[in-house]
Amino acid sequence: MDYSSYSPADVRKLIKEGKIDYQTSGMCNGYAQANLCILPKDYAFDFLLFCMRNPKPCPILEVGDVGSRLIKSMADNADVCTDFPKYRIWENGILKTEVTDISDYWQDDYVYFLIGCSFSFESELLEADIPVRHIQENRNVPMFNTNIALNSAGKFHGNMVVSMRPIPDELIVKAVNVTAAMPRVHGAPVHIGNPESIGIADVNKPDYGDSVTINPGETPVFWACGVTPQNAVMQTKPPVAITHSPGHMFITDVKNVNLKY
Amino acid sequence: MDYSSYSPADVRKLIKEGKIDYQTSGMCNGYAQANLCILPKDYAFDFLLFCMRNPKPCPILEVGDVGSRLIKSMADNADVCTDFPKYRIWENGILKTEVTDISDYWQDDYVYFLIGCSFSFESELLEADIPVRHIQENRNVPMFNTNIALNSAGKFHGNMVVSMRPIPDELIVKAVNVTAAMPRVHGAPVHIGNPESIGIADVNKPDYGDSVTINPGETPVFWACGVTPQNAVMQTKPPVAITHSPGHMFITDVKNVNLKY
Repeated sequence: MDYSSYSPADVRKLIKEGKIDYQTSGMCNGYAQANLCILPKDYAFDFLLFCMRNPKPCPILEVGDVGSRLIKSMADNADVCTDFPKYRIWENGILKTEVTDISDYWQDDYVYFLIGCSFSFESELLEADIPVRHIQENRNVPMFNTNIALNSAGKFHGNMVVSMRPIPDELIVKAVNVTAAMPRVHGAPVHIGNPESIGIADVNKPDYGDSVTINPGETPVFWACGVTPQNAVMQTKPPVAITHSPGHMFITDVKNVNLKY
Repeated sequence: MDYSSYSPADVRKLIKEGKIDYQTSGMCNGYAQANLCILPKDYAFDFLLFCMRNPKPCPILEVGDVGSRLIKSMADNADVCTDFPKYRIWENGILKTEVTDISDYWQDDYVYFLIGCSFSFESELLEADIPVRHIQENRNVPMFNTNIALNSAGKFHGNMVVSMRPIPDELIVKAVNVTAAMPRVHGAPVHIGNPESIGIADVNKPDYGDSVTINPGETPVFWACGVTPQNAVMQTKPPVAITHSPGHMFITDVKNVNLKY
């Protein structure tokens, strides 16, 4: 099923009803998608500071008031508890379960953070005639842990997670330029080429998402990834945290063009 | 004394020694200046969110770790307690006193926020041959309370404070363009012309700073101002808060050019 020309509201409705519980890459062309992290208020200041100090992997799109499930600025009438296709529940840094609705988990002292997602710029890449392999192959984007240390903030620290797209060599500069214009959804790549130099042992074995084909004449290009907060959560071990499931994003009502410089 | 060509480190030394305890407009040409707000940890998340939701008046440059006086990214080896020329101590939203050193007031649960300052773009205006009246007249910039409501966050709410510079009519578009390129130090004006329409009764009677001459053929141009957090503090009435004294800024080691897009 191709949801690329659906409206965000229509796709969110299908997600809310449980009819879409899979990854959202390629859906609602032109609209920004968002990562999620939910933490208790006690952790909220440190986490917000962590995001501000690491804007490439953790570009903040919206933060809720304490206890509020309502998404206000990135969408009209959306609920952070039901409008992602899949969530991960974490306890003390350990993944406990995956669910499609977190209404029963929500607490009065929870704060949600929506963080920019590189799926947002994929329609811009396609528009610029740059192929996006995992969309071509109908897979989730490959994501990797790296050795790139983040700036710590209070309790939060960790390494950057990146997403990878193989880009034909003659289009790499164009891909840098297209994405550099969109810093609120991760912006320009953080690394081009040799995976080993950022601590990736095997570019065909992603830590999250699916593997994709890298053809001769293509180079792996790495962008900062919104799964990074999950990595920080794992390392910081808060008593509880809720994130989206990698690739299973919130589709906003905000057009990518409005997130550009 | 003209400090326009001094280095930030040299001027901060004079400030630390108490030799400069007056306003900093025009000092250290080309280097960004910063506003200050210090709050107890309990208020830090709401305040940080308030700033993020109001980026024009409250563009965050740096936030300290809880209890840390050290300024790390905006300057080398600077102390938030001694390196502003003058501070204001607030209790329950009421201004209690002004001091030139807050070392005796500092507490282990305090968090500092450095916020962009429009003094930063004044050297860019001068470079573009746009006159800056309060520098010409050796005064503090005129600042006004307005009726422009801010986005609230938790306990914080309030109206925007603006700074005003009279600009020759034929240079207004140029002044907009020069400052729009610097969003981290307030960016483009928020209002051009009629003061009444943003709730300013008399443009010759500023609420903070000094009055300046507006010549025939000039229009008052208003920029979002980093005194806005003081306004929010007054309205939110936290038990304690410390801010800089209006116009008495921190001079950073970061060049304005590095805060541009």
